[in-house]
Amino acid sequence: MNEAAFLNLLRPLATHTAARGLLDDAAVLGDLVFTHDMLVEGVHFLPSDPAGDVAWKLLAVNLSDLAAKGATPVGVLMGYALTGHGAWDAAFVMGLAGALDHFNVALLGGDTVAMSGARVLSLTAIGRSANAPSRSGAEAGDALYITGTVGRAGLGLKLAREGHSEECAHLTAYRRPVPRLSEGQALAPVVRAMMDVSDGLLIDAQRMAAASGLAVDIDLDEVPHAGELMAAITAGDDYELLFAASSEMPLPVAATRIGSFSEGSGLSLHNHNGKVALPPRLGYMHG
Amino acid sequence: MNEAAFLNLLRPLATHTAARGLLDDAAVLGDLVFTHDMLVEGVHFLPSDPAGDVAWKLLAVNLSDLAAKGATPVGVLMGYALTGHGAWDAAFVMGLAGALDHFNVALLGGDTVAMSGARVLSLTAIGRSANAPSRSGAEAGDALYITGTVGRAGLGLKLAREGHSEECAHLTAYRRPVPRLSEGQALAPVVRAMMDVSDGLLIDAQRMAAASGLAVDIDLDEVPHAGELMAAITAGDDYELLFAASSEMPLPVAATRIGSFSEGSGLSLHNHNGKVALPPRLGYMHG
Repeated sequence: MNEAAFLNLLRPLATHTAARGLLDDAAVLGDLVFTHDMLVEGVHFLPSDPAGDVAWKLLAVNLSDLAAKGATPVGVLMGYALTGHGAWDAAFVMGLAGALDHFNVALLGGDTVAMSGARVLSLTAIGRSANAPSRSGAEAGDALYITGTVGRAGLGLKLAREGHSEECAHLTAYRRPVPRLSEGQALAPVVRAMMDVSDGLLIDAQRMAAASGLAVDIDLDEVPHAGELMAAITAGDDYELLFAASSEMPLPVAATRIGSFSEGSGLSLHNHNGKVALPPRLGYMHG
Repeated sequence: MNEAAFLNLLRPLATHTAARGLLDDAAVLGDLVFTHDMLVEGVHFLPSDPAGDVAWKLLAVNLSDLAAKGATPVGVLMGYALTGHGAWDAAFVMGLAGALDHFNVALLGGDTVAMSGARVLSLTAIGRSANAPSRSGAEAGDALYITGTVGRAGLGLKLAREGHSEECAHLTAYRRPVPRLSEGQALAPVVRAMMDVSDGLLIDAQRMAAASGLAVDIDLDEVPHAGELMAAITAGDDYELLFAASSEMPLPVAATRIGSFSEGSGLSLHNHNGKVALPPRLGYMHG
């Protein structure tokens, strides 16, 4: 069973409005926002990634979900698998301390378990947002925007897989992504829909359009990217914010208009030459 | 590195008062209570345990932490590892649906990951409590009480390991523990300290005494138990509530007085014949 099939089984259980049909980055209960992400060694990070960077990433990917809801982080609970490598565990805690401090987030609790095999780490992040946008609020005629540049983490992953260990911007983008917390907080009150780009620009734009019951078209000439374009728009792990807003809305943060929503369904691409075919793989698919 | 060593590294990071120094069952933030527990196949449940019962247990062990803080459950976020066994996953979801319904808890969100190896499941439970007791509030002269009977789950685990599959009360106690939610809610306003007994009566009583800066003495003649006494008081997974209260306090629920706190430190045992030596192992030790 893959993730999509499992979520289809699970969805009828998630009847509370706070669950948003399990279609959002986070659960929203009053002004509280909750998100829970797991990282598995060999799946979400490489065994060779430094432990401190894994700690940073575990925190950052969850804070990115809070950012997409315009939330201010309150605290986190962590689940940690002890696999008998004390030096790795100690380096992880050092990295976690730095990351919690950097983002001014409190460690509230959690659980440790002893196990063998690939490391499994889980984190629940709790935040507050007076106005948490969903993925599903885009309207026909809205523009699609993205913060920053896509493809940097994908280039970094390639470098990491090839064994590069010198500090460089792309490797850092992959190992120590920076969640767009302040941008999310500024955008939340003025956008119609927002999510973070964790699995790839194309797949996530398609998800926002589907959740909103609309079609979305992306102008590839406008997409800020690093490296090869098709790789950049299908690579995950950039943790930029993707949002829909009225095209007349003045934006409170720097972002690039890359497309537009219209009646209909599905994702389409174009550039200065006209229509561009979708690549066979739109992004990272779980499960 | 074992759990205790890891927690010692982690504790300096948990500076927020809500974290309670990572010494409590749950984090308490205003009237919100958060807990996060993981279950690992082969460690916390047997590969032969029915998937639906594992789902029940995942929910129940977290709700038991909420019960110990007198909290009413609000909702949960689940982390689930897909390991390529669709029938198991489907049975798990069926069991989860029944358990959520039984305890009237909402599934708010979570994450799924694809991995191989032993199943790893995580759950964060969110509750509300106007008056969450800690582990550390016992006072000298207070009595130690426990709800229910200890040792039932331990007998059930033995049956499960031996391959018994017929329904019986002990097997059910192990596989489908019932968190003492209503008892916890009734007790929270009147107790001085409370926790759930997840790792064993002796080890958990020792933890409450240590957190309160006191000694605790248990009268073994008074301990309601199933099966052999020493096994029962060192077996985990019973999820009864252990609490300290003034010995004059009328109790709002059924519970048994099994000991008392005094100035000093450490755990001691006695029965009608006098002092009883501590067993070499006080309960389940993680990591």
